[in-house]
Amino acid sequence: MEHTPGFRLQQIGTVRSSLKSRSDCPFQETEGAPEAWIEIDPRYKDGLLGLKPGDEIIIFTWLHLGSRQKLQVHPRGNRKNPLKGVFATRSPSRPNPIGLHQTRIVSLDQPLKIKVQTLEVLDGTPVVDIKPVI
Amino acid sequence: MEHTPGFRLQQIGTVRSSLKSRSDCPFQETEGAPEAWIEIDPRYKDGLLGLKPGDEIIIFTWLHLGSRQKLQVHPRGNRKNPLKGVFATRSPSRPNPIGLHQTRIVSLDQPLKIKVQTLEVLDGTPVVDIKPVI
Repeated sequence: MEHTPGFRLQQIGTVRSSLKSRSDCPFQETEGAPEAWIEIDPRYKDGLLGLKPGDEIIIFTWLHLGSRQKLQVHPRGNRKNPLKGVFATRSPSRPNPIGLHQTRIVSLDQPLKIKVQTLEVLDGTPVVDIKPVI
Repeated sequence: MEHTPGFRLQQIGTVRSSLKSRSDCPFQETEGAPEAWIEIDPRYKDGLLGLKPGDEIIIFTWLHLGSRQKLQVHPRGNRKNPLKGVFATRSPSRPNPIGLHQTRIVSLDQPLKIKVQTLEVLDGTPVVDIKPVI
């Protein structure tokens, strides 16, 4: 196995949401997450060409509150659930806390502000990529 | 917009594949990608607890050959296709070249070697996360 020193992510945007603390968060998007906005850093504006309302997208976030040391967790934070490896769960605690969120574009209110249908992510969470659903 | 210095990813594993160069690669997984193996770094072994053959998983890779400067591309590398922002495409050229690949576990041949059904990724590509499909 090669060992590389790691790879550095750039923050391309920031989540703006009414979810202000972890206790506001549902466990999965399907359990009532609110609308949210993605504010794109002006340096990445050209990367948005072609995105439009109605598009299904995948948003990649950096879940900065997760623990990067944990390799096993009790799913949904419930100690009655037997321990699982983090790669068998969606826990935000994992070596690389990349969050994956499928949603739909509601509108592009300003060139740099994308309104999305549902997003289970805290206000202020960094965004690192956006891809179309295929 | 807050500016943070960026986030460092750890390599948790490496793709082993018969795809040895970019010319071997289909454009999408559905176009005939071969089986492949994910070799997990021994330090992350505990994170695999609970993964089993048949599981649908999402593999996150670091597409180290993409250009991080490009913000617009001709889809599928064909100059006849009009330019699109990279966030509206699956191009490996993008600010954070995270690859997203949905596949299925065929077997766990050794504790650290996961055989998967199809994977359109070059041999030697770093793996940075694995999540279950939900």
